[in-house]
Amino acid sequence: MKLATLKDGSPDGRLVVVSRNLEQAASTEDIASTLQQALEAWDTCAPRLQSLYDALNAGDVPGAFAFDPAQAMAPLPRAYQFVDASAFLNHGSIMERAFNLTVKVPAGVPILIQRQGDDFRGPCDDYAFPSEADGCDFEGEVAAITGPIPMGADPARCEASIRLLALFNDVSMRGHLPREMAMGFGFIQAKPATVFAPVAVTPDELGDAWQNGRVALDLKVTRNGEWFGHPNGREMDFSFGQLLSHLAYNRNLGAGTMLGTGTFSNRDHKTVGSSCLAERRALEMLEHGEAYTPFIRFGERLRFEMLGSDGTSLFGAVDNRYVSSEE
Amino acid sequence: MKLATLKDGSPDGRLVVVSRNLEQAASTEDIASTLQQALEAWDTCAPRLQSLYDALNAGDVPGAFAFDPAQAMAPLPRAYQFVDASAFLNHGSIMERAFNLTVKVPAGVPILIQRQGDDFRGPCDDYAFPSEADGCDFEGEVAAITGPIPMGADPARCEASIRLLALFNDVSMRGHLPREMAMGFGFIQAKPATVFAPVAVTPDELGDAWQNGRVALDLKVTRNGEWFGHPNGREMDFSFGQLLSHLAYNRNLGAGTMLGTGTFSNRDHKTVGSSCLAERRALEMLEHGEAYTPFIRFGERLRFEMLGSDGTSLFGAVDNRYVSSEE
Repeated sequence: MKLATLKDGSPDGRLVVVSRNLEQAASTEDIASTLQQALEAWDTCAPRLQSLYDALNAGDVPGAFAFDPAQAMAPLPRAYQFVDASAFLNHGSIMERAFNLTVKVPAGVPILIQRQGDDFRGPCDDYAFPSEADGCDFEGEVAAITGPIPMGADPARCEASIRLLALFNDVSMRGHLPREMAMGFGFIQAKPATVFAPVAVTPDELGDAWQNGRVALDLKVTRNGEWFGHPNGREMDFSFGQLLSHLAYNRNLGAGTMLGTGTFSNRDHKTVGSSCLAERRALEMLEHGEAYTPFIRFGERLRFEMLGSDGTSLFGAVDNRYVSSEE
Repeated sequence: MKLATLKDGSPDGRLVVVSRNLEQAASTEDIASTLQQALEAWDTCAPRLQSLYDALNAGDVPGAFAFDPAQAMAPLPRAYQFVDASAFLNHGSIMERAFNLTVKVPAGVPILIQRQGDDFRGPCDDYAFPSEADGCDFEGEVAAITGPIPMGADPARCEASIRLLALFNDVSMRGHLPREMAMGFGFIQAKPATVFAPVAVTPDELGDAWQNGRVALDLKVTRNGEWFGHPNGREMDFSFGQLLSHLAYNRNLGAGTMLGTGTFSNRDHKTVGSSCLAERRALEMLEHGEAYTPFIRFGERLRFEMLGSDGTSLFGAVDNRYVSSEE
């Protein structure tokens, strides 16, 4: 099924079920009023939400209304725990070669990055940031939203606890990244708020494209309407289950924990491109000795989308504009 | 005023007002049922909570009951944003000298560390962790809990947005820390759940000890009933306002954002001791060539407390036991 959260002036918004074709929505108010509530009572809520979804797809919900992505917040507008991975090792390898870095990651240990979860943005919201000198970049990613996972859970148990998948732009401010990486304490100014596609989906919506705890679909990125890349999630070097199990080594994960893949990155970058500017710039440096693709300027527009195997939009699109916070 | 959250089986618990002497509590259910709710409607809730607090201190609340810290969760049992600082530069300087590190922190830039906020522990709860080989340590800290702070807010505005202060043990697993610091992406397994003293207090409860956005009080640490240290918060090198302003450079902070000081550390460590094992061990290495104070073993007990200028416990105590998660 597909779920979204509509703006209602509150920080958690109002949960709705969205039809498979993203055209219709139906209120879930007699099941759960927010997605966090649904996640905390998933065993009772999920079957009722699924029935509503089935009825909506059949055109059988009297109060259904047109779904407008511009009215959507992030599906989960804030999360008590958001951790981002860097699970496509191809990306790290390109960055290390371009910048002559040696990132000391022991083999088999995934990179996980604790992140802010209190300010997720809706798919069409203007995104304000202070200065073009911050080096605004995007990263195309998928997040898993989980049920509760107890400390010490193995990858299979973690994977079985995935309730929903979501598509997002992990907005990155590259001007702050070298300083914060050199300090060694993770990201603060380098990683502000993230932007989500309007709809979160249960893994079964992916059909055969949900493979080994990975999303085997192209993540289509356009910048100002022009193709930028369409890397596939198949090449992720750790499954969601493996990433979550590393995270849960010595912590309990609450319902509504969100874990991101890291920027999609494929070995065949010449054909599929990249899902972030930093990687394309690094490839330019390696090939031509300098990076010429500029970072995001105020007024630019980005679009991220993933099509399911039937060719229809799976999550809806991230499609928003970047603006100055000083105006 | 003083606020606490009692266990009721739900993730957010049940908010109560606690008397200044920590002996009595009163239900806030007709004002706000959780602390997060109170923080999100602070302007209307705070005066009503204050009136209830005044009445409770006067022995004038009919339904008042004995306050039992063992029934307390963390005052804010989970937060949408938790960031920890390392604002006592003395601590970093000792660690760098002992381990021959060069932490590349530009002058005037505070160290901030994005942290998990979904699993704060109550003051008397057993704390389970997987292995003594993880190098379990404590860090004595104070956290500020804020109202909403808009992107770009200056230190004065940030400081004025502090609603509450809380005392906590930033439990640290030193066995994972060198690996995660070398990776450069911040802490995951090195920093699991934190443990809070039972009561959060408004800054006015500190009287003269709330100085320049710092808590000028001793943080008393005992390990298995023996004195370990009592460093004072006066020596913090950045104020809470400065730390929050750095954080808010390019992000909005929601009501209920929590920011920690980092482990208390004073230059006069020979007299006041430390508030974490890592620092004492580093001092032993510098003085004697080796560290002999061991990390926490299963069954050990820690107690953190701060007394106000009148000699009474300000936040109540963190007073709990460390146990194996394998049993």
